[in-house]
Amino acid sequence: MWTGGTITIVTSASTPPPAHSHRITAVRVTPVAFDDLPLLNSVGVHEPFALRSIVEVVTEGGVYGLGESYGDLPHLQRLERAAGRLVGCNVFDTNAIMRAVVTSLATDDGVGGHGMSGMVTGSATADRVFSPFEVAALDLQGKLLGVPVSDLLGGAVRDRVNYSAYLFYKWAGHPGHEDDEWGAALDPEGLVRQATKMIEEYKFSAIKLKGGVFAPEQEVEAVKALRAAFPDHPLRLDPNAAWTVETSIKVAEALDGIVEYLEDPAPGIDGMAAVARSAGMPLATNMAVVSFDHLPESFAKDAVQVILSDHHFWGGLRRSQLLAGICQTWGLRLSMHSNSHLGISLAAMTHLAAATPNLDYACDTHWPWKRADEDVIVDGVLSFVDGAVPVPTGPGLGIELDRDRLARLHEQYIECGLRNRDDTGYMRKFQPDFDNSIPRW
Amino acid sequence: MWTGGTITIVTSASTPPPAHSHRITAVRVTPVAFDDLPLLNSVGVHEPFALRSIVEVVTEGGVYGLGESYGDLPHLQRLERAAGRLVGCNVFDTNAIMRAVVTSLATDDGVGGHGMSGMVTGSATADRVFSPFEVAALDLQGKLLGVPVSDLLGGAVRDRVNYSAYLFYKWAGHPGHEDDEWGAALDPEGLVRQATKMIEEYKFSAIKLKGGVFAPEQEVEAVKALRAAFPDHPLRLDPNAAWTVETSIKVAEALDGIVEYLEDPAPGIDGMAAVARSAGMPLATNMAVVSFDHLPESFAKDAVQVILSDHHFWGGLRRSQLLAGICQTWGLRLSMHSNSHLGISLAAMTHLAAATPNLDYACDTHWPWKRADEDVIVDGVLSFVDGAVPVPTGPGLGIELDRDRLARLHEQYIECGLRNRDDTGYMRKFQPDFDNSIPRW
Repeated sequence: MWTGGTITIVTSASTPPPAHSHRITAVRVTPVAFDDLPLLNSVGVHEPFALRSIVEVVTEGGVYGLGESYGDLPHLQRLERAAGRLVGCNVFDTNAIMRAVVTSLATDDGVGGHGMSGMVTGSATADRVFSPFEVAALDLQGKLLGVPVSDLLGGAVRDRVNYSAYLFYKWAGHPGHEDDEWGAALDPEGLVRQATKMIEEYKFSAIKLKGGVFAPEQEVEAVKALRAAFPDHPLRLDPNAAWTVETSIKVAEALDGIVEYLEDPAPGIDGMAAVARSAGMPLATNMAVVSFDHLPESFAKDAVQVILSDHHFWGGLRRSQLLAGICQTWGLRLSMHSNSHLGISLAAMTHLAAATPNLDYACDTHWPWKRADEDVIVDGVLSFVDGAVPVPTGPGLGIELDRDRLARLHEQYIECGLRNRDDTGYMRKFQPDFDNSIPRW
Repeated sequence: MWTGGTITIVTSASTPPPAHSHRITAVRVTPVAFDDLPLLNSVGVHEPFALRSIVEVVTEGGVYGLGESYGDLPHLQRLERAAGRLVGCNVFDTNAIMRAVVTSLATDDGVGGHGMSGMVTGSATADRVFSPFEVAALDLQGKLLGVPVSDLLGGAVRDRVNYSAYLFYKWAGHPGHEDDEWGAALDPEGLVRQATKMIEEYKFSAIKLKGGVFAPEQEVEAVKALRAAFPDHPLRLDPNAAWTVETSIKVAEALDGIVEYLEDPAPGIDGMAAVARSAGMPLATNMAVVSFDHLPESFAKDAVQVILSDHHFWGGLRRSQLLAGICQTWGLRLSMHSNSHLGISLAAMTHLAAATPNLDYACDTHWPWKRADEDVIVDGVLSFVDGAVPVPTGPGLGIELDRDRLARLHEQYIECGLRNRDDTGYMRKFQPDFDNSIPRW
């Protein structure tokens, strides 16, 4: 009845680590700023710096785990309040970490500060605050145990995770500065040029265009130009709810058979449901359905057919897998949303996508918009090969903190003066009458 | 910005186990039989032996993990076919273990053999076959890492798991044998006597009665007698779908304010939904909703308000946590179902319930019906204190296999001749005209 070879049975594992080494002895939250480019969206334009918070969780044995999250001040303050309650927790006890987070939020109004500039609304505050600590805890667990985070999530079902080319309309450079290496993209030709450069460098096999910047007809033309230039790349368009239901339906007709999904055309669950009733393609969202509370109503109304998961606001990696299981059960498909991020998040996104069988769309990432020399981790682990990131195989997330780089980006945070993401305010410096109302067309 | 004391940072964990020790080198599936008592239910009566399968998964280093499942022959054969495909898998890669199980089932019709004698129908075969291997993999992971399985499931939110007194109508003893220590329970007095004995011994704080045996009015009277004898114990009644919708509604009226939930009164999602529309108490199920496929329809129809999870057919511990997350998201409550089981399953149920915040009803267990001297594990870890099992804190499930006991129960399996659970067939030996139709009243 034995399957396999000769076996020696031992009654317990060889030298498991002592339990005391699983206690959290210190937690550090460090805000950082890194260069960002003037990328346009429905509420304005990216400022010269993107803000992030870097979380380190340390155990008695001196092993550390890393997490990364939004950098807006109210969020940062929430992270620091939560951090103060984590010392003493067992790093394997993420339920206790969540309880500590919830307790730390007891006097918090939960409003604002997620650093997504209106792009995500109403996601659960506890899930947003918990996320970087959960990622750091899993990184630490993996390091303590000598297994990659993907193993702690059930095992990698793919050894590379596909990402998409994430195109933006953009200015040639920040006003008052030289043109950046990407130059302007304000029309179909500019976007095709941008896509060509990005795909040449990264070999992405799917393309997403951030829309909601120009009139819908212009953006439809841009997608058609991308289709002509890249006949085999799946395409997506995301206007960030800039359109009415009526406009969304017209765009859906115009792009039927051209995009693999249409992302957040209209605001809200009811708006998306109204569009979905006539759209020929699946609708995707990271705005209408952004927390577990939204799922029952959204599913009952068949409002969306694809959810763009994001561990930063869905409560970390394991709760993102809960979302994945829910999508599988209800027959929805799963993709992945991105904000501007650094290497810790890319590593976490890659482990999550690798260990989530039904996360099979190419994931979004802002990675190409980040300067290659700016990060907080040691280079060399994360790379793009044919549009995909090979899943790190080292313990935990498989990455190491570079303390000099962290110090430099923290210094940059201090110096840049930005404390909250404000795409609209920045835009209005140059276009005082900029209208950020949603929907606009 | 540091929270906590002085820290020494090291760049990697101390001596993680070598990755090769995570490979599965052998898998053993051993059928066992243990004494069972003549417990009555809607489809017949328990035979003199209950069948289970014991799964051992072993890695290169000789560490083993344990799982337990049903013992019916078709299920056993499925387990053995799957076992043959697991050698070489990484024990952390439960996705790969599931794939191997699915592959092994490719030529299987998926019908029968789950050993629940009609009590659970239509649950997903892959989830049932995967379950004991997943439990064994988690046990092994925990042993390799020196952490309890509850930590691998997110951490214990309670250090003791409450179980309920699971009452059965029963004969005094198996026909042709002496009366057993519990004696007969064929009327309200007999059930109160049984409950008194069981609660005196185990201090259970909740009571469940397996019904569907006598006419509904008699079972209502029995519940009222239990209420009178145990005024503070939450009560439940489970007729295993033996009633029509009309009868179920009448029983629900009669027991309104008396039972905390009514379990599977009528068959099927539509039947339960019809009862739920007028019942004053929540309806629970482990028959109408027994796989992920059933959830969308059930939720859309508001058919049940409590799901009795069971890792043996919901695909193991992590997929049971997916079910828990789904119930939390949709506002359903969660309890736990039991079949006749041994200590491996009790340990797994206890770790799962401990690490699942919303599994807060007292769980079902058949434990009191098992002879104390019959098991396959070493005594001493699992005990009942005030109706609850303290969560084992040792590595993995925290239990050890007793090979002599395993050999004895395997010998008993060989000798007893039973290969499939057949409550109806056994009943008809003594009552040839026994009617097992569902619903019956």
